[in-house]
Amino acid sequence: MTVTITAFDRSPDGGKGLARDTRVRWALEEVGQPYEVRLVSFAALKEPAHLALNPFGQIPTYEEDGLVLFETGAIVLHVAETRDGLLPMDPAARARAIAWMFAAVNTVEPPILDLSIARLQERDRPWAAGRLPLVEERVRTRLRQLSARLGDADWLDGDFTAGDLMMVSVLLRLRSSGLLDEFPRLSAYVARGEARPAYRRAFADQLAVNTRP
Amino acid sequence: MTVTITAFDRSPDGGKGLARDTRVRWALEEVGQPYEVRLVSFAALKEPAHLALNPFGQIPTYEEDGLVLFETGAIVLHVAETRDGLLPMDPAARARAIAWMFAAVNTVEPPILDLSIARLQERDRPWAAGRLPLVEERVRTRLRQLSARLGDADWLDGDFTAGDLMMVSVLLRLRSSGLLDEFPRLSAYVARGEARPAYRRAFADQLAVNTRP
Repeated sequence: MTVTITAFDRSPDGGKGLARDTRVRWALEEVGQPYEVRLVSFAALKEPAHLALNPFGQIPTYEEDGLVLFETGAIVLHVAETRDGLLPMDPAARARAIAWMFAAVNTVEPPILDLSIARLQERDRPWAAGRLPLVEERVRTRLRQLSARLGDADWLDGDFTAGDLMMVSVLLRLRSSGLLDEFPRLSAYVARGEARPAYRRAFADQLAVNTRP
Repeated sequence: MTVTITAFDRSPDGGKGLARDTRVRWALEEVGQPYEVRLVSFAALKEPAHLALNPFGQIPTYEEDGLVLFETGAIVLHVAETRDGLLPMDPAARARAIAWMFAAVNTVEPPILDLSIARLQERDRPWAAGRLPLVEERVRTRLRQLSARLGDADWLDGDFTAGDLMMVSVLLRLRSSGLLDEFPRLSAYVARGEARPAYRRAFADQLAVNTRP
């Protein structure tokens, strides 16, 4: 079986690992599934060939034996459900791990995306300085709640799962803002994720793409 | 088996069906699973008893034979995976339906949440009028792409699935903004969702809670 994913020809972050293909690479590395990468330029993202794979013109996409998937969360879940290593076998623990995946993308990531928009896309708007503290406070609210739940545990619910993979990936987007440093337990949690050999391989592979001549 | 969900004692929308318990009610109605509802006041959302169920202090939560879940998307997926009626049997079609669930919450909903924040929480801020058009345009971009993919089909990928349930629910949040009316195919798609008997029962039940004396 050949697995092919798409990634940016050149990621806007220059290889910091924040483009969403890193999440999928990480999942594939955790389960030991080899994969190929097809690089897509920004212009090609909006062309019919790519829109057929992902109607929203984003990366990553996932192809495997005629199955085409888009949405990082769905790809990671598919990889986790069809290979061992990212979800517990117990049905209840499995459902809870999936709940953390949704919490990452639907509860924790939206204010973080909003913060990225405020800090980058709207940085030159007249409201930028006045609005930023509000947006940061919404992020802090989620971080405070997440930190309280994590407590002194290594991972969110027992062993490392796809839920941690998604949550660490979402939190990584915050590093440049400094907000993560306000929450030592979450900083340590993210560092534990980054220290995993599978993450390191995924990160190195996307970095090689983004720093090639 | 007893299924218990939580919902707002009084929804901030006064019963328009936009609180997220409506999504879970709808899923439970589609599969014919009876359920009980425990109403939670705003103050109680932040208390330890509720935070034990949902660390982010939100509704809905889901309890069933000792399993506790939070996150609407995860609850709907659990209901869909353990009962018939919301996911196709074919594994590839099933994975694609789940991709639409993630697309709803991670690609389409974030700009819609941002629009709600702009129109409600930030309405009295000095930047409100100047920023609104930018936020609306981000929503329109997603609606344009979604409408193009839907085309003249009734549902996003074959028969109605949990992916449509989530996408229709996310789009319903836009109705009061008028943006949905700019996309006739999406308006008709949402109307098809609302016309389903399961949705009508879910809507009526949440309305009864929110309009009781």
